[in-house]
Amino acid sequence: MTLQSVLDTIDRDLPQATERLLDLLRIPSISTDPAFKGDCDRAADWLVADLAELGFDARKAVTPGHPMVVAHSGTEGPHVLFYGHYDVQPVDPLSLWDRDPFDPQVEETAKGRVIRGRGSSDDKGQLMTFIEACRAWKAVHGTLPGRITIFLEGEEESGSPSLIPFMKENADELRADIALICDTGLFESRTPAIVTMLRGLAKCEVTVHAANKDLHSGMFGGLAINPIRVLTRILGGLHDDTGAVAVPGFYDGVKELPDAMRQQWQALAFDHASFLGDVDLSVPAGEQDRTPLEMIWSRPTAEINGIWGGYTGAGFKTVLPADAHAKISFRLVPGQDPDAVMAAFEAWFTPQLPADCAAEFKDVNGSPAGEMQISHPAFEKARLALSDEWEVPAAYVGCGGSIPIAGYFQTYLGMDAMLIGFGKDDDQIHSPNEKYDLDSFHKGIRSWARILDRLM
Amino acid sequence: MTLQSVLDTIDRDLPQATERLLDLLRIPSISTDPAFKGDCDRAADWLVADLAELGFDARKAVTPGHPMVVAHSGTEGPHVLFYGHYDVQPVDPLSLWDRDPFDPQVEETAKGRVIRGRGSSDDKGQLMTFIEACRAWKAVHGTLPGRITIFLEGEEESGSPSLIPFMKENADELRADIALICDTGLFESRTPAIVTMLRGLAKCEVTVHAANKDLHSGMFGGLAINPIRVLTRILGGLHDDTGAVAVPGFYDGVKELPDAMRQQWQALAFDHASFLGDVDLSVPAGEQDRTPLEMIWSRPTAEINGIWGGYTGAGFKTVLPADAHAKISFRLVPGQDPDAVMAAFEAWFTPQLPADCAAEFKDVNGSPAGEMQISHPAFEKARLALSDEWEVPAAYVGCGGSIPIAGYFQTYLGMDAMLIGFGKDDDQIHSPNEKYDLDSFHKGIRSWARILDRLM
Repeated sequence: MTLQSVLDTIDRDLPQATERLLDLLRIPSISTDPAFKGDCDRAADWLVADLAELGFDARKAVTPGHPMVVAHSGTEGPHVLFYGHYDVQPVDPLSLWDRDPFDPQVEETAKGRVIRGRGSSDDKGQLMTFIEACRAWKAVHGTLPGRITIFLEGEEESGSPSLIPFMKENADELRADIALICDTGLFESRTPAIVTMLRGLAKCEVTVHAANKDLHSGMFGGLAINPIRVLTRILGGLHDDTGAVAVPGFYDGVKELPDAMRQQWQALAFDHASFLGDVDLSVPAGEQDRTPLEMIWSRPTAEINGIWGGYTGAGFKTVLPADAHAKISFRLVPGQDPDAVMAAFEAWFTPQLPADCAAEFKDVNGSPAGEMQISHPAFEKARLALSDEWEVPAAYVGCGGSIPIAGYFQTYLGMDAMLIGFGKDDDQIHSPNEKYDLDSFHKGIRSWARILDRLM
Repeated sequence: MTLQSVLDTIDRDLPQATERLLDLLRIPSISTDPAFKGDCDRAADWLVADLAELGFDARKAVTPGHPMVVAHSGTEGPHVLFYGHYDVQPVDPLSLWDRDPFDPQVEETAKGRVIRGRGSSDDKGQLMTFIEACRAWKAVHGTLPGRITIFLEGEEESGSPSLIPFMKENADELRADIALICDTGLFESRTPAIVTMLRGLAKCEVTVHAANKDLHSGMFGGLAINPIRVLTRILGGLHDDTGAVAVPGFYDGVKELPDAMRQQWQALAFDHASFLGDVDLSVPAGEQDRTPLEMIWSRPTAEINGIWGGYTGAGFKTVLPADAHAKISFRLVPGQDPDAVMAAFEAWFTPQLPADCAAEFKDVNGSPAGEMQISHPAFEKARLALSDEWEVPAAYVGCGGSIPIAGYFQTYLGMDAMLIGFGKDDDQIHSPNEKYDLDSFHKGIRSWARILDRLM
């Protein structure tokens, strides 16, 4: 009954909640560009003031970079930490925007109403879903539920340099029973989802060195080895004919998906034809004996993210370059050790070099995959709450990308994390004309109210 | 006896000849940069004046680009056309020069005296060897030998846009019994050489198209095809395990080297270890059943001259690009048709693409290899003259690069060409600190005097 009152309050207050979000979106808090340092500070102040008005004990915590916002409420009962980030991506190329990215507006579109502006989906709109849920709760109950810590970062779009030091220094203050992270999306823009598997990443830049300078192919062509030829020959064998990664040892430690999860994923009936069709592709390019969802969520991959060498400008230059380069990355799954993967790659690559060539591996680093413990009771409670709101069974899903914050909560605070978000595939985050569906905002707020109701 | 007088005159006049060359080198006739248009004109004027003083009927011929210098002498006897170019390469990076590139000087070095400055070897120093030989001849004989046409270009370093139209329009004026081209080098910096085989060139830029935009490898990695993976896999198979080009039909029409030429090349005892050692290489990378000289002179090759795709800047971006690109060239030998080679490449490349990818071939063009008719009596005469001067048997050699002018003389004027030059491998043409050995200049002048004596 009181949950219904909270939901009713959310419905009634939606126009005001939207205005508050538009207000926050007007602050151009681009964290990667020093010109907007003052704006990042202003966004943090805005949030501290809003949280204080809601009854939180809120503060702006100084870091060597942009400030953190930390707020607490309650002293008893279950303790959740909510994470989001108030910084946004740069907006260039500005010419591709249909409106000023920092003059946000609600727009009518063929697919319904959207909030258009930089940060609307990533991540100001998402973080405000949680804050608005707290506001409605407070309006109905006169108080906030249980114990809530809010932790908002201002450097997520610029590599989070202050995050780990801050978490280490303030571990006792930040530690809760579970972390709630709102920076992900719905499954196929329709089904509410809790991310329980996150792929890790290992990567490096490899250079093949040949002659001590660029050579003219007229003089040397046919006699001197061309490092681009060497690089393409080796990397051309990175995958075998079945689409599997050909590096020996690469799959060491990779586990098969548990049957229960496999069945749940099958039930999702992922429309890979539509997913690929949106980018003019049609054929799943991964391991041929795997389903499309396994390819992006639970199987490791190897990709050449960049390659360059020789003359790449207009016209032609018949050069045999001294060097050729590639940036290689591996998406990792639980059980794979990033260091072992990189060592296996080097051990596979190097013996394939001809006598006159040498390989150099730079910026070799990685982070392991993450796997949430869904046996934690909060997971099932949140899943039921989301299913109620969206009238579709919520799904435990994987995430092909790396979301380091979830791993940091595990590593530095010993805390599991639930990644729940309401973004859609067409939100254009990091791109011109970013938007957040008004429906995502509205039902997102309602979702958090239902989750808080079940958790607290 | 009169030849000896000419040679003595050359020896005696060397200081003055050097001063004249330095004077010409002071004119910064960089043809590719419009800022030096006036200087190109000035270099042409300098040459017209010098040739007129020698008794040539010399003129500066206007073109849409830089002017040609055309000069004639004599009305009877054998008729030779001499070709050189008065324009020079740009000088950047200027910071790597040890002196002002247009304040040339004779320098003492550990390897002997050199003329240092832009254009000293390519090609002002070389073209002046012929003009100085004419000057000494005139001084001794009072007249120039036979019929001589001098044809000097000012656009060689910028693609010779006016050359073919000018040759076509002035074919009757330019046609001679044989062309003499002084823009090549000694064999291994020691042995006088006449180039009789010139490799042709066919080339293109290939793009593999995949998705309709760049994709994030977290979201799509494992499911969406990466065009760099496709490009490296296909190009990685451009050569087979023996170093041969794997494109079916590529070797169609390629002839084996005549036995006589093979024996002569064996006698040259090419020091490939030293040739490759100079650039820190050691292993001949071409077809394993061929000699190093065959690899660079008489066998066709395939090279990837440039490759690019995805993120190539500092740091890392886990992108799956929409496209990947490469610039491919083939050095061709007599018997190969450039159009057929490019068609064979496309026919080999395209069927290897997966369903979701398409290939685009841009800037597809080529020129066939050149092969001089050494049965023309001028070749043996020149070979004997060079052997006399250098006291080493002169060699008929191949040239791995493409020197289009020789082919143009054949195509547009129906005239064979002898490519004879005195450059050395360490002349640093097109690079900072270009030089021409004073010995190359001196013996080059004497070489032309001996060649004129035998030909005329």
